[in-house]
Amino acid sequence: MNEIKDLMGKVIQFRDDRDWQQFHNAKDLAVSLSLEASDLLELFQWKTSEEAVEKNLEKTEDELADIVTYTLLFANETGIDIISAVNEKLKKNDKKYPVEKAYGVNK
Amino acid sequence: MNEIKDLMGKVIQFRDDRDWQQFHNAKDLAVSLSLEASDLLELFQWKTSEEAVEKNLEKTEDELADIVTYTLLFANETGIDIISAVNEKLKKNDKKYPVEKAYGVNK
Amino acid sequence: MNEIKDLMGKVIQFRDDRDWQQFHNAKDLAVSLSLEASDLLELFQWKTSEEAVEKNLEKTEDELADIVTYTLLFANETGIDIISAVNEKLKKNDKKYPVEKAYGVNK
Amino acid sequence: MNEIKDLMGKVIQFRDDRDWQQFHNAKDLAVSLSLEASDLLELFQWKTSEEAVEKNLEKTEDELADIVTYTLLFANETGIDIISAVNEKLKKNDKKYPVEKAYGVNK
Repeated sequence: MNEIKDLMGKVIQFRDDRDWQQFHNAKDLAVSLSLEASDLLELFQWKTSEEAVEKNLEKTEDELADIVTYTLLFANETGIDIISAVNEKLKKNDKKYPVEKAYGVNK
Repeated sequence: MNEIKDLMGKVIQFRDDRDWQQFHNAKDLAVSLSLEASDLLELFQWKTSEEAVEKNLEKTEDELADIVTYTLLFANETGIDIISAVNEKLKKNDKKYPVEKAYGVNK
Repeated sequence: MNEIKDLMGKVIQFRDDRDWQQFHNAKDLAVSLSLEASDLLELFQWKTSEEAVEKNLEKTEDELADIVTYTLLFANETGIDIISAVNEKLKKNDKKYPVEKAYGVNK
Repeated sequence: MNEIKDLMGKVIQFRDDRDWQQFHNAKDLAVSLSLEASDLLELFQWKTSEEAVEKNLEKTEDELADIVTYTLLFANETGIDIISAVNEKLKKNDKKYPVEKAYGVNK
């Protein structure tokens, strides 16, 4: 079973039922990803991390879901394979932040 | 096979190898998600969508991978199940944007 | 007459009338600046630049005003002199982007 | 003396010396404002507010200057008068957050 393909299928079905692909060029999807990430961040505005999570768990789930949705739409539009992109990036990060130097260090 | 759990396992392994969970409260992860979304958007600055995608596909993959990585870390930290969050949000959006009203309409 | 000091005075008066300084540490103000910049950007989501400006001029003014407001609050909180900060940055940018190399070039 | 007009004059001179206005439609300037706000926020990533300000004051000044610069360029492009925009917004906020309800309340 292919979870990501399955999830992407649902998101694309939703988009196509509404004929929205015409608006979804990569640049506007990148703008939308940034806006959704801000919507998530807004739940933490003027609050400590704990207060925010406690108060807003359902909204937090909704905002994270929006980020995932636009990530899938962006990947679909640009032909990016999410799993292999993450695997490649982890390899690069492994070289950039070797354990012996990065251990316990906050950049 | 559980793709998302598998991907999350790798990301968490990377984090724990470096003892970085101590920095990863939900608020700082939300900040990081926002910053990574901006890094993706920056690839489109002053460019058309087509120019940007053409010029920067590898960087685009890397930035999208960073967004996925922080999405997974945030989900891990807050106990959010990504697949069920997206499914729930799609149901809400289905009511918010009914096909007969939303078809072909750019908000 | 000192325009910026005058404007800052009004913004601070508004804040202090509500006893809000207690929430305004620099990090949360930086979060807020980022959220307000997203609110401005949202007016352009799925639209061309021209469509957005034409449709939303009053909202655009309001969002830009919010950005200015948080810029002033942030400057107040961190003791930054806005005019000298811009002058210093222009000098640095003048070296970073010399006219003979930067002319007509989109980064 | 008109501080803001004076500052805007310098920023526009810098832009025009490089023939950059051609890239500066309002949408791309709004994208840039969002990116610059993220650059400022990045200085606070994984840090407390105090740690960040202490460590990075010069960078903080530079990033705030970039935000001011793009605010001025955006205002110039859209014909917004910054001072009157802030004054109008303060009036609206005064109604939206009346002192008797908003005093000491974090939203």
